[in-house]
Amino acid sequence: MIVICKKGTTQEQIDQFTHWLHDQGMEVHLSRGARTTLLGLVGDTSSLDAEQLASLPFVERVQRISEPYKKANRKFHPEDTVVDVSGRKLGGGHFCMIAGPCSVESAEQITEVAQAVKGAGACVLRGGAFKPRTSPYAFQGLGPVGLDLLRVARQKTGMPIVSEVMDREQLPHFADVDIIQVGARNMQNFTLLRAVGEMGKPVLLKRGLSSTIEEFLMSAEYVMAGGCEQVILCERGIRTFETATRNTLDLSAIPLLKRLSHLPVVVDPSHATGIPWMIEPMSRAAVAAGADGLIIEVHNAPEKALCDGAQSLRPQEFADLVEGLRPFVKLCGKEWAR
Amino acid sequence: MIVICKKGTTQEQIDQFTHWLHDQGMEVHLSRGARTTLLGLVGDTSSLDAEQLASLPFVERVQRISEPYKKANRKFHPEDTVVDVSGRKLGGGHFCMIAGPCSVESAEQITEVAQAVKGAGACVLRGGAFKPRTSPYAFQGLGPVGLDLLRVARQKTGMPIVSEVMDREQLPHFADVDIIQVGARNMQNFTLLRAVGEMGKPVLLKRGLSSTIEEFLMSAEYVMAGGCEQVILCERGIRTFETATRNTLDLSAIPLLKRLSHLPVVVDPSHATGIPWMIEPMSRAAVAAGADGLIIEVHNAPEKALCDGAQSLRPQEFADLVEGLRPFVKLCGKEWAR
Amino acid sequence: MIVICKKGTTQEQIDQFTHWLHDQGMEVHLSRGARTTLLGLVGDTSSLDAEQLASLPFVERVQRISEPYKKANRKFHPEDTVVDVSGRKLGGGHFCMIAGPCSVESAEQITEVAQAVKGAGACVLRGGAFKPRTSPYAFQGLGPVGLDLLRVARQKTGMPIVSEVMDREQLPHFADVDIIQVGARNMQNFTLLRAVGEMGKPVLLKRGLSSTIEEFLMSAEYVMAGGCEQVILCERGIRTFETATRNTLDLSAIPLLKRLSHLPVVVDPSHATGIPWMIEPMSRAAVAAGADGLIIEVHNAPEKALCDGAQSLRPQEFADLVEGLRPFVKLCGKEWAR
Amino acid sequence: MIVICKKGTTQEQIDQFTHWLHDQGMEVHLSRGARTTLLGLVGDTSSLDAEQLASLPFVERVQRISEPYKKANRKFHPEDTVVDVSGRKLGGGHFCMIAGPCSVESAEQITEVAQAVKGAGACVLRGGAFKPRTSPYAFQGLGPVGLDLLRVARQKTGMPIVSEVMDREQLPHFADVDIIQVGARNMQNFTLLRAVGEMGKPVLLKRGLSSTIEEFLMSAEYVMAGGCEQVILCERGIRTFETATRNTLDLSAIPLLKRLSHLPVVVDPSHATGIPWMIEPMSRAAVAAGADGLIIEVHNAPEKALCDGAQSLRPQEFADLVEGLRPFVKLCGKEWAR
Repeated sequence: MIVICKKGTTQEQIDQFTHWLHDQGMEVHLSRGARTTLLGLVGDTSSLDAEQLASLPFVERVQRISEPYKKANRKFHPEDTVVDVSGRKLGGGHFCMIAGPCSVESAEQITEVAQAVKGAGACVLRGGAFKPRTSPYAFQGLGPVGLDLLRVARQKTGMPIVSEVMDREQLPHFADVDIIQVGARNMQNFTLLRAVGEMGKPVLLKRGLSSTIEEFLMSAEYVMAGGCEQVILCERGIRTFETATRNTLDLSAIPLLKRLSHLPVVVDPSHATGIPWMIEPMSRAAVAAGADGLIIEVHNAPEKALCDGAQSLRPQEFADLVEGLRPFVKLCGKEWAR
Repeated sequence: MIVICKKGTTQEQIDQFTHWLHDQGMEVHLSRGARTTLLGLVGDTSSLDAEQLASLPFVERVQRISEPYKKANRKFHPEDTVVDVSGRKLGGGHFCMIAGPCSVESAEQITEVAQAVKGAGACVLRGGAFKPRTSPYAFQGLGPVGLDLLRVARQKTGMPIVSEVMDREQLPHFADVDIIQVGARNMQNFTLLRAVGEMGKPVLLKRGLSSTIEEFLMSAEYVMAGGCEQVILCERGIRTFETATRNTLDLSAIPLLKRLSHLPVVVDPSHATGIPWMIEPMSRAAVAAGADGLIIEVHNAPEKALCDGAQSLRPQEFADLVEGLRPFVKLCGKEWAR
Repeated sequence: MIVICKKGTTQEQIDQFTHWLHDQGMEVHLSRGARTTLLGLVGDTSSLDAEQLASLPFVERVQRISEPYKKANRKFHPEDTVVDVSGRKLGGGHFCMIAGPCSVESAEQITEVAQAVKGAGACVLRGGAFKPRTSPYAFQGLGPVGLDLLRVARQKTGMPIVSEVMDREQLPHFADVDIIQVGARNMQNFTLLRAVGEMGKPVLLKRGLSSTIEEFLMSAEYVMAGGCEQVILCERGIRTFETATRNTLDLSAIPLLKRLSHLPVVVDPSHATGIPWMIEPMSRAAVAAGADGLIIEVHNAPEKALCDGAQSLRPQEFADLVEGLRPFVKLCGKEWAR
Repeated sequence: MIVICKKGTTQEQIDQFTHWLHDQGMEVHLSRGARTTLLGLVGDTSSLDAEQLASLPFVERVQRISEPYKKANRKFHPEDTVVDVSGRKLGGGHFCMIAGPCSVESAEQITEVAQAVKGAGACVLRGGAFKPRTSPYAFQGLGPVGLDLLRVARQKTGMPIVSEVMDREQLPHFADVDIIQVGARNMQNFTLLRAVGEMGKPVLLKRGLSSTIEEFLMSAEYVMAGGCEQVILCERGIRTFETATRNTLDLSAIPLLKRLSHLPVVVDPSHATGIPWMIEPMSRAAVAAGADGLIIEVHNAPEKALCDGAQSLRPQEFADLVEGLRPFVKLCGKEWAR
């Protein structure tokens, strides 16, 4: 961390500040020029609050050099994390296809979709039981019953399941869910992040609509600080000025996240684009950019779906997508997880 | 709501769809042209999911005409809502100054700040007890103890208090807090919104970093659907490409929100800009644009603040701010609430 | 400027680089720590290309400390610039109201509007002759004829005129136009900026849709490098995710620009919001934030306007706006220019 | 185009408006409900100004149904446009690699780079002669001399050349340049677009930093309205809140542009990311998303480059990139143009 002092900072101010920094366990390197005084801070700066330092009356600016996240940081954990999803692998060369409906609606619906996507090549079943909806008057999901229906589909197909939790109080219902999902709107719900991390199960963390890469990794750090090392990062589009797609899928996030962190990265092209015919090209692009998996919405009757049906694929469309993707996954040197 | 059908839509599809809409209680006006077929839907469309309709195979596009919020909508509630904060008024011509430190740190600190801001003209005391921090390693606030210290300051000064809740499980601690604040990061934490609404106390709802005006009002609708009519909307800056300020204070939101809704609107220039000397011009601008109040961070020793000190004013700076603001408030025809 | 070197940078690399910097006239302060090596560069760094330095194989990051603009910088020109618009003053305590139609359409139209806005209190007449339109099939303005009609209106009313130039080749037509306007879409048309600056007349420079404050000032610097010291900066809304208004009016830009630069700042609420009833509150807010003037679109028959009529005020609405603004201008200690 | 009228619109207003629309050659379909009156406009609505209509006092909102561009629209030109670059093909199954330095610096430099990139598989040579720079004090390119040096390299290697024009007055220098580039900052310099179109040569049009897909296609329409059918669209990153990369590469733009338009689409990952190691994954992703070509910055000595060197690849890195890309291009069913 570098602290740039204002012109006119006195030697006394520098001395007091340096003394305080020593107390915090920092090593301080002073560079005093005619016009600028710089302090280089060496040590574990993650405990320092850059904004707090910036509030000191003689400080012009504070510049971080090292990243503020540790457990999620590849520098301290060079090997790829491979997430173990009840026996299936995700990350570190294992490509995992997650598929299923936006919302769980009935035993027939979820089982039918599960069998279809499993047959086509999906490895994990997704389905929403608790649904975050912008309108209080819209269908909010089946809740615990939806999770029960997912369990039925898991039993019939053997597929692990992933579903979204919206609140700490719902967590007891997720004790045997294979991957707990935290949605984009909750990416900075810090009490939830920590509580989810304490469950000790794999967590799928979606990037917030307007979260920077660093904020995304800081949220992963919260989950990991709670005790969970098995975090899957999910890019699902960011909010920009462009209105032609629902969000702007930021595929640059894939190589960036994988360089900064050891955690696996999956992509959700269904929610990012909101347009079914765009799922195929964006899925291929995500794979080519290095994604470790995809989450695709599949519905057996999109025109009747209770929520978000507009962006869902039909089972046959999903099967075609998978066939087209396999050579890309192979070309990227990854193994298709089953 | 207008549904624009694709070219080639058959009469049978139109008939089936119209039949279904009638079942939902809608009146349907059909306009069939050579190249376009339109259906105008009249009735309570807030129960319809525009995206669900857009997923129908013959639908080109769906266009909402009426707003999806009802309780927050000025059309159905033309009079300004005046929030009663334990006897003080906010909105409807009553201008309310809310001030205090970012975090409650000690009994001395909060009482000293409370006395200072009350003397200068503040009406409500703010102070953070539960702090949402991007790093799990940063100071997270004093929690329930912080709320107790706020109560002490309230007793000594008679000022009502406002503090942020981060999670449903923390709500029991807020039973006697005068205004419950929901932060920007939780603006779409829907389970929290509803639970806060059920408390029946005034709620200060901050706009999310990348929330549209409509999403903001939909979140107010959640609180109101929970049972609370006393919602204060707070603009606190949105995320844009500009990096010269922490966020971009969107003052256009003030006249827009006040035209679309009957709820009062306050502005937080401290968090929006992150720059102390910008608080005065942006406060004046907010008042001139029609704000019903301001939230200002004040600290008795900003250089020692444990959090966000960089943007805090000292008590004397706050007193100067208030003196400069009074004529603007008067010019806007508002009364300064005490 | 601070150059942060990568771990492992050799002494030889440092020495060669320091030698080269000395050749460029820089003084170099070296700070070598166990983990980080910093070089503090002192001198006229505006000739250095930060990105070029960042491309050196041993450089981690380059951090500018001083602003890259000089002529526009308040540090080197502490006094407010007062622009002389053919005898009228703008800036330095002189508040200037600029008004007129989006497009010049006919002698009657422009003269009628000019007389109306002058009577209401406007000081300068605006009117578009060359119109930047997103569609090649839309009306592109009357061109040189439009400028002639503006001259007629100037002669009849005595008001100085401002009009937009789109291209270097159009500049000869602007020799006697009182203020030359450069539009938002041309804010980084660098050849035009320099050529406009060489005209030696006051220039009204609009901020680009997605320009940072620094880029905006760099474009002013181009005009000033061309020879013109009389640049008026115009905030007219930036592009964000919000769709409720055409653009997001960034009023924070006013105090920021006025602190960083000595140039006057005016605001265009008509284009920023695109909504006539929002012009009044946003005009008041702009004045309260410190604006030196406003540009308002006024049309004698908005419903017949050939372009952008949607955001125009009628003459009586403009007169009401002015009456409501005068006490705000006075409260801000500014004199209304005539 | 659909016009939604305000509640309370009189029959007389509707009749007058309908009459006027008939005069403009429109067919009008009226749908009058209890609460809403809609007019469906059928005909060539590209001559209508949606904003003008929205300014009518009884109009609530105007909704376009058809796109405002014609020549660039795939609906009226279903076949892919194949651009003929002095004998090489780009688009319609022909993948074209464009490479070269950011700036032309010397005969040796440009010839050496040209030979290297040709050997590695590039088809067209890029090089900047006129450089748009944010600072008036930075190197602005060699100008006409730079174009001469590009011609020398073309003669030695046989590669067609592409270079950026910044201003109409520079166009005479580009008479024998194979592709004329219009940069992102000039994407809405409409006089330049039209003049470039009149040259009758292939044009490479870069997307503006904050341009929507529709605005981008409207700018292509300007070039085509000038007379040129051979427009190459180039995605080069948009401006968002994210600061980890220079811009956010919007790969969704590729399938969108190719569906809406018949024009070929190329991607510039060098400028979009500003980070050399990200060029490879983003190039692969661009190909997988359907790009018809790439533009890559290559320099024989990036650490000495006068501009933008930070994002350049060395010749060997470029050769490695090409080798890795070939199987992706093949998998996408495209032929590598030579």
